[in-house]
Amino acid sequence: MKKSLIALAVLAASGAAMAQSSVQLYGIVDAFVGTTQDTIKTPGSKSQTVVESGGLKSSRWGMKGSEDLGGGLKAGFKLEQRFKSDTGALDGVNFKGESSINLSGNFGTVALGRMGTPYDDLRGKTNAIADTNLSPVGDTIKNAKADYTDKTDNTVAYVSPTFNGFSGAVAVSFNEDKTDKLDATSHTSLKLQYANGPLLVGYGYQKEEAKAKGGADDSTFNLLAGSYDFGVAKLVGGFQTAEYTVANAQVGDQDSYYFGVQAPVAKNINVYFGYVNSKYDAVKAGDDVKATGYTLAANYVLSKRTDAYIGYKNIKKENDNTGADQGKYTQLAVGVRHAF
Amino acid sequence: MKKSLIALAVLAASGAAMAQSSVQLYGIVDAFVGTTQDTIKTPGSKSQTVVESGGLKSSRWGMKGSEDLGGGLKAGFKLEQRFKSDTGALDGVNFKGESSINLSGNFGTVALGRMGTPYDDLRGKTNAIADTNLSPVGDTIKNAKADYTDKTDNTVAYVSPTFNGFSGAVAVSFNEDKTDKLDATSHTSLKLQYANGPLLVGYGYQKEEAKAKGGADDSTFNLLAGSYDFGVAKLVGGFQTAEYTVANAQVGDQDSYYFGVQAPVAKNINVYFGYVNSKYDAVKAGDDVKATGYTLAANYVLSKRTDAYIGYKNIKKENDNTGADQGKYTQLAVGVRHAF
Amino acid sequence: MKKSLIALAVLAASGAAMAQSSVQLYGIVDAFVGTTQDTIKTPGSKSQTVVESGGLKSSRWGMKGSEDLGGGLKAGFKLEQRFKSDTGALDGVNFKGESSINLSGNFGTVALGRMGTPYDDLRGKTNAIADTNLSPVGDTIKNAKADYTDKTDNTVAYVSPTFNGFSGAVAVSFNEDKTDKLDATSHTSLKLQYANGPLLVGYGYQKEEAKAKGGADDSTFNLLAGSYDFGVAKLVGGFQTAEYTVANAQVGDQDSYYFGVQAPVAKNINVYFGYVNSKYDAVKAGDDVKATGYTLAANYVLSKRTDAYIGYKNIKKENDNTGADQGKYTQLAVGVRHAF
Repeated sequence: MKKSLIALAVLAASGAAMAQSSVQLYGIVDAFVGTTQDTIKTPGSKSQTVVESGGLKSSRWGMKGSEDLGGGLKAGFKLEQRFKSDTGALDGVNFKGESSINLSGNFGTVALGRMGTPYDDLRGKTNAIADTNLSPVGDTIKNAKADYTDKTDNTVAYVSPTFNGFSGAVAVSFNEDKTDKLDATSHTSLKLQYANGPLLVGYGYQKEEAKAKGGADDSTFNLLAGSYDFGVAKLVGGFQTAEYTVANAQVGDQDSYYFGVQAPVAKNINVYFGYVNSKYDAVKAGDDVKATGYTLAANYVLSKRTDAYIGYKNIKKENDNTGADQGKYTQLAVGVRHAF
Repeated sequence: MKKSLIALAVLAASGAAMAQSSVQLYGIVDAFVGTTQDTIKTPGSKSQTVVESGGLKSSRWGMKGSEDLGGGLKAGFKLEQRFKSDTGALDGVNFKGESSINLSGNFGTVALGRMGTPYDDLRGKTNAIADTNLSPVGDTIKNAKADYTDKTDNTVAYVSPTFNGFSGAVAVSFNEDKTDKLDATSHTSLKLQYANGPLLVGYGYQKEEAKAKGGADDSTFNLLAGSYDFGVAKLVGGFQTAEYTVANAQVGDQDSYYFGVQAPVAKNINVYFGYVNSKYDAVKAGDDVKATGYTLAANYVLSKRTDAYIGYKNIKKENDNTGADQGKYTQLAVGVRHAF
Repeated sequence: MKKSLIALAVLAASGAAMAQSSVQLYGIVDAFVGTTQDTIKTPGSKSQTVVESGGLKSSRWGMKGSEDLGGGLKAGFKLEQRFKSDTGALDGVNFKGESSINLSGNFGTVALGRMGTPYDDLRGKTNAIADTNLSPVGDTIKNAKADYTDKTDNTVAYVSPTFNGFSGAVAVSFNEDKTDKLDATSHTSLKLQYANGPLLVGYGYQKEEAKAKGGADDSTFNLLAGSYDFGVAKLVGGFQTAEYTVANAQVGDQDSYYFGVQAPVAKNINVYFGYVNSKYDAVKAGDDVKATGYTLAANYVLSKRTDAYIGYKNIKKENDNTGADQGKYTQLAVGVRHAF
C-alpha cells in the first residue's frame, strides 16, 4: 500500500516529460484480406477467404529505450509482444518478439534475455521480399524438413564493433535442463559479415542441441549469404546446409538455396520476387523430399509509417525419390501495414 | 541481435517527441465494492460481499493512433486489452476490446480486424444507464435466452460518411471454418441511422451463422432503437427481435424492449433508470421464458476523467407458461471509475 | 465501429501532450547470469549455469497516474505486469504486480483492487539486501514452512495520514467463496509504524483464512521490525511469528528472525549482508524444521536508473529434532538492472 503512494509521489515529482524520455512505445499493426489453401498440412483442404494478421510483418507492440551512462557506455532494453491483429490473440509467450537488456560501448554490445540469434540476423538481412512474412524462404524450407530456431531464451550474446566493414556476433542460449545424470544442452549461434556500400556478404553457423534418451538430437545449420544493391534493383540470396541427428546418429541433411530481387518501379511503388529450393536427403531410403516456393509481391508506400501491399506465395512439396506430389500451399494477400 | 541495435539507433535519432505523436496510451480503471446474488445461474446461492471490476465500464488499457496520409486519407489503429481491476486478471483474449487497423477518407472508413459490430454500435448508443455495465438490458436479454455477439474477429467493416444526418455501416466477419465438405460460415452486421440535433433513430440487423451437423445453427437479430435529449433528461429505448434455428429448423424467437432515462439532477450529479422486458417463445411447448430487469443508478462527477457511482440492478426470470420463478440476479455497487 | 472513429476523433482533438500527462509508462528489466542449485526441492540436483530474470527486482512494466481532483482530493491508479526477462514469459496473472485504483485526501487513502498488503509493506521496508530478490529472508522462511501472502485480490485498503511520525494501514481481501452452507473467508492485514529521521519501527499483523471441509485452515502472522540509518551503514531487522491451523486444530508455529546491513563502501558501490533463521515447531512429534539463510551482495551504480550487481545466496534446511540435513539452495548471480 504505502509503496504505491510513494511511487505516485515520485511520479508527481519527476513529471511526464522526464518519464517519456526513458521509454518509447512502438508497434506494427498489419492485417490483410486474402485466400489461403494448404494441402501439405491438410490434404483435401479447400481455398478459403480469410482476414489474417501480419502479411508483411507480424503485428506487435513493444517498449524500448536507451540510456547514456557516460564514458561511451550505454544501457538499453527491448520488450516486444506479438499478437494477431485479426483476433487480438496473443501470439505465443508474452514478449515473444524480444525480451532483452544490454550494455554497449567501445567493446561492442553484451545482451541478456530472449532475442533473435546472430544466424537469424544474417538470414533476415539476405531474405527475399524484404524479409517479410510473404517471403517463401522460411516456409518452404520448413515444409521440406525443418529450419533454424530464430529466437532463443536464456541467451547471452555479444556483438562486436565494426572494423573496416567486418563485424561478428555470437550467442549462447542455455536450455537449463541439467539433471543428476545428464549434462545441460544449449544452442550456439554465430555470424561473421562484411558490409561495404552496396555489398553485404556473411557466414552464419547455428547448432541446436536437444536432450534425448539414447544420445543427442542435434541440428546444425550453415549459411553463406549476401546482398547487392544496384540502385535500380537489390539482389539477395543465400545457400544453407543443415544436418540432423537423432540419438547421435545422422538421420538426414538438407540443402537449400534462395534468392530475391526487389525494385522501385515507380514513385512509392516497389515490386518483389523471391524463389527458394530446398531438398531433404534422408538416410532412410525413399524418404527424400523436395520443396520449392516463390512469391511475387508489391507495396504502395502511403507514408513513412504506412503502406498497402499485395502478394502471392506458392509452395510445392514432392517426394524427391518418386516425384509424387505431397501438396501445395498458396496465399493471396491484400493488406495494409501501419507502424507507430 | 544486430536488429535490436539498429532499432535503438533509430530511436535515438527520432527522439521521444516524434515517437509520442504516433500513439496514445489510454485506459479505464473501474472498481467497486458491493453485493451480488445470482440464483438464476446457481439456485440457492447467497448474497455476498465482493470487490469487482467494471461497475460502469470494463477496465481496460490500450494504444491508438491516427496518421494523416495527405489528400484526405488517414490511417488509424486501436488495440485494447480488457482486464479485471479486482484481481489484475486478463479478461479473455489479449486485445479482446479491439484489435483493428483502418483507412478513412471522403469515401468513409474501411477497417480490418476484431472490433464491435455496427449492430452493437446502435445498441450502445441507445442503451440504458449510459451504456454502462450497470445497464440491465444485455444481462436480462441473455438470461431470457441469448443476445447478439458484440465483437467479432476476422472482420472487414465499412462505415459510410454522413449525408444530411444519415449514415450506415456494414461488417462481415469470416469464421474461416470451411472444410472439404462444408462451406465457410460468417457473421453479417449492419446499421442505418439518422442523427439530427437531439434526435437519433436507427435500424440494426445482425445474422450469426454457426456450423452444425444437420444444417445451420443461426441467430438473426433485428433492432429498432432511438434516443432523444430533452436537455433536462435524455430518453433512450429500443425494440429487438431474435430468431434462432438449430439444424435449419426454427427453435424459438425472442422479443425484447427496453428504455432508459438519465437526468442531471444537480451540479455534477446524474441519475439513471433503465428497464427491459424480454420474452423467449420456444417452439417446444411449455419452455417459454420471461425475464425483466431494471437498474437505478447515480454518479458524482469528480472530474472529466473520474467519477464515483452507486447502482442497483435487479433481474427476475420466470417460466412464461406457468409463471414459475426461475431465480433472480441482484447487484449493488459503490465504486469509482478513472480514465487515463 | 463508429465508436472507434469517435475515439480517434477525440484523440486528434486532445493531442499527444494532454494524453501523456495522465499516464506514466514505467518498468524494470533485470537479468543475470549465474549458477543455481536446489537440493531442498529436488534432492540430488546439480548446480547449473542459468540466465534468469530479476536478480534484484522482478522484471516488470506498468502504467500509473495521479489526477488532482481539487479540494485536496486525488485519484490514482497503478497497473503492473510481471514477466521473466530471460524468456519473455508472463509471470502469473496479467497485472500480478498491482491492479488498483485509489482516492486520497486529508483523510488518508482508500484503495480497491489487487495490491501488496500493509504487512508486506512493513516486511519490505525492513527486509535485508534492500528488499531485493537476493534477500534470503522470504525464501528461507518459506523453506522452513510457509510465509505470508504478499499481494491480495479483491482488496479494500485504507492508509492513514502520518501524525507526528505515526501512521497505519489496514486491508481486507474478500475471498468471495460463500456457498449456501459456508460463510465467506477473507484475509486481513494491518500495519502500525513510527518513522522519525533515521529510525523506523513497526508492527504488522496478517490473518489468512482458507475454507476447509472440517473447519478453517488459517495462518496468522505477527511481525515486529525496524531499521536505523547510521549514515555509514543502515541496519534492518525483524522478528516474525506464525501460527497454522488445519480444520481449526493448531498444527504448528514458526518463529523467524532476520537482520541485514548495507553500507556505501566507495563511490557508487554498496555492499549488503543479510541473515535469517526460521524454526517450524510442529505439533506432530519429530517434524520440526530449521532453515537458515544468508546473502552477501554488492552493486555498482551506473546511473540513477541502472546498476550492475553480484550476489550469493545460501539457504540450508535441516530436521530440527534430529539435525538431519534436508538440502540446500545456493544462487550466484551477476547481472544488470535497468529502470525506465
